[in-house]
Amino acid sequence: MSPFTGSAARTPGWEHLRVDIADGVATVTLARPEKLNALTFGAYADLRDLLAELSRERSVRALVLAGEGRGFCSGGDVDEIIGATLGMDTAQLLDFNRMTGQVVRAIRECPFPVIASLHGVAAGAGAVLALAADFRVADPTARFAFLFTRVGLSGGDMGAAYLLPRVVGLGHATRLLMLGDPVRAIEAERIGLISELTEEGAADEAAHQLAHRLAEGPALAYAQTKALLTSELDMPLAASIELDASTQALLMNSEDYAEFHAAFTEKRPPKWSGR
Amino acid sequence: MSPFTGSAARTPGWEHLRVDIADGVATVTLARPEKLNALTFGAYADLRDLLAELSRERSVRALVLAGEGRGFCSGGDVDEIIGATLGMDTAQLLDFNRMTGQVVRAIRECPFPVIASLHGVAAGAGAVLALAADFRVADPTARFAFLFTRVGLSGGDMGAAYLLPRVVGLGHATRLLMLGDPVRAIEAERIGLISELTEEGAADEAAHQLAHRLAEGPALAYAQTKALLTSELDMPLAASIELDASTQALLMNSEDYAEFHAAFTEKRPPKWSGR
Amino acid sequence: MSPFTGSAARTPGWEHLRVDIADGVATVTLARPEKLNALTFGAYADLRDLLAELSRERSVRALVLAGEGRGFCSGGDVDEIIGATLGMDTAQLLDFNRMTGQVVRAIRECPFPVIASLHGVAAGAGAVLALAADFRVADPTARFAFLFTRVGLSGGDMGAAYLLPRVVGLGHATRLLMLGDPVRAIEAERIGLISELTEEGAADEAAHQLAHRLAEGPALAYAQTKALLTSELDMPLAASIELDASTQALLMNSEDYAEFHAAFTEKRPPKWSGR
Repeated sequence: MSPFTGSAARTPGWEHLRVDIADGVATVTLARPEKLNALTFGAYADLRDLLAELSRERSVRALVLAGEGRGFCSGGDVDEIIGATLGMDTAQLLDFNRMTGQVVRAIRECPFPVIASLHGVAAGAGAVLALAADFRVADPTARFAFLFTRVGLSGGDMGAAYLLPRVVGLGHATRLLMLGDPVRAIEAERIGLISELTEEGAADEAAHQLAHRLAEGPALAYAQTKALLTSELDMPLAASIELDASTQALLMNSEDYAEFHAAFTEKRPPKWSGR
Repeated sequence: MSPFTGSAARTPGWEHLRVDIADGVATVTLARPEKLNALTFGAYADLRDLLAELSRERSVRALVLAGEGRGFCSGGDVDEIIGATLGMDTAQLLDFNRMTGQVVRAIRECPFPVIASLHGVAAGAGAVLALAADFRVADPTARFAFLFTRVGLSGGDMGAAYLLPRVVGLGHATRLLMLGDPVRAIEAERIGLISELTEEGAADEAAHQLAHRLAEGPALAYAQTKALLTSELDMPLAASIELDASTQALLMNSEDYAEFHAAFTEKRPPKWSGR
Repeated sequence: MSPFTGSAARTPGWEHLRVDIADGVATVTLARPEKLNALTFGAYADLRDLLAELSRERSVRALVLAGEGRGFCSGGDVDEIIGATLGMDTAQLLDFNRMTGQVVRAIRECPFPVIASLHGVAAGAGAVLALAADFRVADPTARFAFLFTRVGLSGGDMGAAYLLPRVVGLGHATRLLMLGDPVRAIEAERIGLISELTEEGAADEAAHQLAHRLAEGPALAYAQTKALLTSELDMPLAASIELDASTQALLMNSEDYAEFHAAFTEKRPPKWSGR
C-alpha cells in the first residue's frame, strides 16, 4: 500500500511465528504451546523484522498478538535463552538485549494499533510484549508476572521500567517490577493494566472484533493518535500542543475528514478510506 | 489587583461566553444550550482572551467553567467549525488548531485553579476543556467522549494525548483517544478522570462551593501549587526538588505563612490575604 | 560491604532517629511519639546523612521507615520548624528547603528498596517521606494529608508535585496537593497510593516481612530495578530501552543470574549472593 517500498523483498515465510493477514488485520500467534510459547532468539528476531516489514508496507491496519494453547507467553525460554546467554560475551549480550528492546520499540512505533489477546500466563518478556501493546484484551484467566528479578535480572527489561509506571503509576509499577509476583486479571483491570476484560475464552474473539473495527476505521487518524500518544509521553506540554495543532491541520486536509462531513450532512455512515 | 497591568483595556463584554465575577470567583458559562454548547470560533477566541486578561489582572482567585442546559459541551460545532475548516488553507488550519491549543495552555497556566462543572455530555473539545481543568466536579449524568477519530482526526487534539495519559494512565488514555467511546461518570471516577462526584444536578453548586473555598484561601500558595504541578510534569526529579525548595523559600516570606503561624499560636483560624 | 568506602567515619549514633540494623534490614524509626513524630531540623539532617552513609557502605539491603506511637509522622514541627523559619534569611530558607528535598532524593536514589510502614497520620513532610518510599505498607488507620497549602505554602514540597502525579495521576494529585484534605487508607489504596493494605496494627510486621524477603533476594537486581524506575521517569522511551539493554547485559554477567540457572537446572531454590 505504501508508495515507498524499496528493493527489500517480502519475507516469504516466518518460521518462528504464525502470521495470518486478512482484511487489513494481521494476526501474529506465538505458536509453541508445548512450551507455553516461551520466546526463542528466532521468535524475537521474527517479531522485530515482521513489525518493520508491515510498518514499511502499510498493508496492515491493526495487529493482534496472541498465544496458542494454555497461555499467552511464558517469557524467554529458560534453556534456550537464559542458558545460552550464560555463554555469551559482552557484545553478544548487548546485541540480544537490544533486539528484545527493538521489538518493544517496534510495537510502540508501528503505524497501526497492536492488540494483545491475553489468556493464561503473560510472564517476563511476555508480560512486556503485552504491556507495549496499545490494547490488552484479556479473559479472567489472564495473569501478568514481571518475573525478571526472580532470575536475578533487572525489572526494567525491554522498556518495562519506562512503560509500566506510565500505565499503572509508579507505586504499582515498583511493586510489580521489584517483586515479580503474579497479577491476576481482576487486579490488572483495577490498576489499568487491562483495556477490556472478556468472558473466559473470549479474548481472541474480542481482540479480533476490536481489530476489525479499527481496520475498517479512519486508519490515518488512528495511526496519528498512536504516534502522538507515544511521542507526547516524552514531550513537554507546550510542544505537545504545537504537535497536536500541526497534526490536526494536516488531517483536516485528509479524505476521511471531508468524508465525515459529507456523511454527516447526508445523514449516512462515513466510508473511511484511511487517507 | 496586579500592579503590572499596562495599556490594554479590559474587554467590555464577552459575546461568546457568559462571564460573571463575584467574590474572586469567575463563572464562565458556555451558553448555547440549543446546540449543546457547541464551540464556535468566537467561543474559542473568547476563552483564550478571557483567560489571558484574568491572568494579567489577578482579580480572580478561582474559575468555574460550566455549560448551560442539557450538557457541558458537545465540542466543536459540526457546521460552523468542521464545515468551515474544509474551506481553509494550510495557514488558516494551523491558526485555528493553535488557537484551540492556546485555550488549553491558558487553562493549565493561569494563576488560579480552574474547576470544570460537568453534567451531561463533555465531548470532543468539550472533553479536553474539562481534562485541562484542575478539578472536574461532575454529577452522575456526566459522560466524556474524546470523539476526534470519529470525525477522521487525531485523538491528540489540544494536548489530549499529553494530558490524558498523565491523568488516567497510558492504557485507558489509548482506549479513550483511539476509539472515542463514551466514558460514563462511574467509569470516569474509577479511572481518576473525575475529582468529585456529586448527586444528580448538584455539580454546579459543588463546583462553586469548591471555588469559594479556594478563593477564600491562600491564593499565592494555590497558584504556586498549580504552577509546580504543571511544570514538574515536564521536569526531572532533581530539578523539581530544587524548584520546590526555592518556591517554599519564597513563600516562607509570604504574609500568609506568617499569618498561619500567628493564627495557630493564637488558636484562631487564619485570615488569608493571598499574599 | 562496598570496597569504595573512604576516610569518612561511621556515625557512632543517631540522636534524632532510632536506627536498628539486622540481617541486612535497617529499621529507621521516627521516635518522638509525644509529638506524633513531628520532624525537627535534626531529624531531617539525620535522615539525609544516614541514607548517604548506608548507600556508601552497602551494608543494608532494605530499609523500613516507621513511626512510633499513634501515627507515622505529623510533618514538620509547627513550633520548632515553622516558627523558626519565620526568623530566617533567604539563604537559610533555601538551605532548609534544600535539605528536606535531599532526604527525598536520598530515598529515591539509595541502592536498596525503602518501605514506609504506615499507621495513623502521615501528614505534610511525613506524607512526602511515605510517597518517596518504594513501598507503602499501611494498616486501615493510615491517612495521608499533604497539608502544605493549609500553612500557606506550596503543595509542591520536597518533590511532591513531581512524585504524586506519577503515582496517582494528575487529577488526584491536584486535588490532594491543592486542598490538603486527608486521604484515608481505603481511598489511598483505590488510587494507588498504598502498596499493601494490612490488618489493623499489622503494618510494621508486614513491612519487615517484605524487607526480609527483599534482603534475602538478588540485591543487585533489586537495586538496578529501583535505579531504572527512578531514572526512566525522566527519560524518553528509546533511551530507556537502551539503558535497559545495557543493564541486563551487565546483570547477565552477575553471580545471581548464573545461580538462578544452576538452581533451576538442579531443581532447587537459588541462593542469592546479591552480586
